[in-house]
Parts: sequence; structure tokens; C-alpha cells
Amino acid sequence: MAAAAPPPPPSAAPEPSMAPPETTPIGHPVFTRIRLATPSDVPFIHKLIHQMAVFERLTHLFSATESSLSSNLFLSPPFHSFTIFLLELSSSPIPPLLSPSPSFTPIEKTFNFDIPLNDPESDAFSIYYGNQQVIIGGFVLFFPNYSTFLGKPGFYVEDLFVRECYRRKGFGKMLLSAVAKQAVKMGYGRVEWVVLDWNVNAITFYEQMGATVLPEWRICRLTGDALQAYQNANV
Amino acid sequence: MAAAAPPPPPSAAPEPSMAPPETTPIGHPVFTRIRLATPSDVPFIHKLIHQMAVFERLTHLFSATESSLSSNLFLSPPFHSFTIFLLELSSSPIPPLLSPSPSFTPIEKTFNFDIPLNDPESDAFSIYYGNQQVIIGGFVLFFPNYSTFLGKPGFYVEDLFVRECYRRKGFGKMLLSAVAKQAVKMGYGRVEWVVLDWNVNAITFYEQMGATVLPEWRICRLTGDALQAYQNANV
Repeated sequence: MAAAAPPPPPSAAPEPSMAPPETTPIGHPVFTRIRLATPSDVPFIHKLIHQMAVFERLTHLFSATESSLSSNLFLSPPFHSFTIFLLELSSSPIPPLLSPSPSFTPIEKTFNFDIPLNDPESDAFSIYYGNQQVIIGGFVLFFPNYSTFLGKPGFYVEDLFVRECYRRKGFGKMLLSAVAKQAVKMGYGRVEWVVLDWNVNAITFYEQMGATVLPEWRICRLTGDALQAYQNANV
Repeated sequence: MAAAAPPPPPSAAPEPSMAPPETTPIGHPVFTRIRLATPSDVPFIHKLIHQMAVFERLTHLFSATESSLSSNLFLSPPFHSFTIFLLELSSSPIPPLLSPSPSFTPIEKTFNFDIPLNDPESDAFSIYYGNQQVIIGGFVLFFPNYSTFLGKPGFYVEDLFVRECYRRKGFGKMLLSAVAKQAVKMGYGRVEWVVLDWNVNAITFYEQMGATVLPEWRICRLTGDALQAYQNANV
């Protein structure tokens, strides 16, 4: 799971005490929306996952293709299995979705930055709603898990990723919060994910969001040839 | 996740060199079957989970009820969401299921032990198929997870539990192997679970089964009031 660094406080500029109320945003507004991904987003998702593998220096483990993603994702209704939220950004208000999902109302938030966000890869991550360009800035992939002790489901966040030029702005927090909010809405008991023990910035960020890091548990993984060996196992 | 200790080698007694071939099992045969759990098994599942909480000294975290389990399990076809295999044991061959699932052919295996297995709680864990008593000895609960790097699903094993009187016999290995075999059958890429870092016996057992322990990852958990705080979050 890629780390989203702690966000700075919102950069709302103080109003001069005698000035009239501001009626238009000052600085550089960025309109954002979190929405459910759809099958047509797979090319973006594939590129985002690859960037995450590069960021984590794990490209040797990267074997996903657009085809493998298409065949394994979007097979169940949202939230019942693997689910992806995408973060969209635009310098103008984002048009409403033409075919909104009945399962999830997109979350919108307007940020205001002192300096413009410079995206060197905007072309590769652009969607056009009519004439309006919207940029895909990141994603979160999650799915239900289950706590037998609680006797109820939760969500496990497999990946949280914000593209480099959009980090440290609060977007990672926005994506993870959206998952937590959805968990509460569904009456789920937990949201869980994993973090590398040396990634102090990420751990601090997650703790600020209310998470606890469990120190004693270790992940066991059976994969590759060791897993294939069970194909004909007389268990 | 409860530890199932490493199994001893099968206790097949050597034949006397000039004796005729054995035609009946010697010692104490135990007939076992792994099958999918069904809603009518919830009372057993609840008792097994409670025993697991006692074993792990985590009863303060235990809040599952038969009602909560019933309302959250068995909502999807097997393997698509939360799935439970049960281990059945009997001193006689176990009758075939009257309503076998098309998704899974039960796995049967006969063990032969030098001494009989003494189950002080057999009454509380008995199922009768006609006149034949069969004992529930343990369970494994698992569900799909997803690796974006592989671009394919896997299974996450939330719980593996064998009742105390049946431990160190190979039944834990049998349950976990059944999950691994099912993962291979479905073309999945991984089977994962967690273990406590001080549980050396469990770690050794899992490594003997082909698993790798990932040393650097830590679990983050957002739960309780910290999770509820996101109910009205302006993310």
C-alpha cells in the first residue's frame, strides 16, 4: 500500500478584517470528486497500479495487465467484492455523472491552493466529460473482509495511491476517509490495511486518521510454485 | 488466527514380513471429511469461534452472536465471499451429503491412530446423519482478496481452528491445504493469512507448508469510535 503523506492544513487565506466577504475562490481552486470506477476506467487503473509498483520498487512483482484487471474486477455489485474509488480533479466544477451508481453518491470537495498543481502527465490521465477535461489523480481499491470475533464484515484496503504531483494535499486522506465513511454507512466493524514498518510518515498519517498499528501480527503468504504444489494435494 | 501445530507422520504400523496383507485398518481409524458449512451449522461455528477466542485469550474482543453470524454469512455463493469449510470426524465412514454443493466436492481422508481420540465435548459438537454420529472438529473461514500487482484474486484465511483434542494430528494442515487446493483450482494467485510473531510453532508449521512470512508489513486497523467518527466526515 502506497503512503499518502500527512496533509497540510487547508490553505484558506485569512480575510482582511474590514474587507467584504469573498464571493469567488482566491488562489487556485481544484475541484475534486471521488466516484466508483467502471470497466472503462481499466486503462487508467492499470497505469496507476504500475506507477504504484514503481514507487514501491516492486516492479518485479508486477504482472497485472489491462486484460487481467478487466476479467477480475467489476464482477460483483460495488462494495460486495473488489471495489475501486477514483479521485478526479479539475480546475472547473466537474459535471455530474451521466449514469451515477445507485450504490454510491460521489463525494465532492473543493480545495484552494496557493500555487497551481503542475501535472506533467495530465494527458495520460485525462477524461473528457463533453469538453471538460478531468484528471485522474489517484485511487483506492478495497473489498469486504470478515471478523469472526465481531461477527460482522469490514473493509480491507488493498491499495491507496495518489499520483506524485498530487501528494501532500489531503487527497490520500480524502480517499481513505471515503472508504471509512462507506464502512460506517454499511454497519461494518473495521477498516484495515497494511503498512511497511519503516514507513514512519505513513504510520504517523494513519495514526492521525485514528488507526492503530498492530505490532505483533505478521502476514503469511503461499504463492507461486509453493501454492501450485497443492493442485493435486491429497489433503 | 489459531495455530495448528505441525502434524506427526502418519502412524501406519509396519506389517510383519510374513504376515498376510492387512484387510482391515489396524489401530483406531478416524474418518474425516471437509465440507462447506451451511446456515444450519451456525451454532457449531459460533461455539468454535468462541473456543478460538478463549484459546487466543481474546474473549474481550468477542462479540459475535449466532444471530450476527447468520445475518452476515452465507449471503453469496461459496468462494465469492465469506466461506467456511468444516472438518467432520467419525469412527465410521461418513455418509454422503444428501444435498452436496455443486461448488465443492467434499474432501475425505482416513487417518489411523495408535490410541483413540478422546473428545470430552463430543455431545456439543455432534451432527447425526441418520443414526450416525459425526463430530465437528474444526473450521477454516476464508474469503477472496485481491492483488493489484498480480491482477488477480487470492484467498485470505481469517481463521483456522482445530479443537484442542484434535490438534497435532494433521487436521489443521488438511483444512489449510483444502483452501490452497481450491485457490489453485480457481486460478487464484495467493493464499494469505496472519500469525502472531511470537508463535514460533505456528510459523514453523506454515513454513513447512510452503508459506513465506513477510517481516516488514504491519496491520493498520480503524475501528470502534475512531471509525464511527467518519460517519459524517466531510472527506
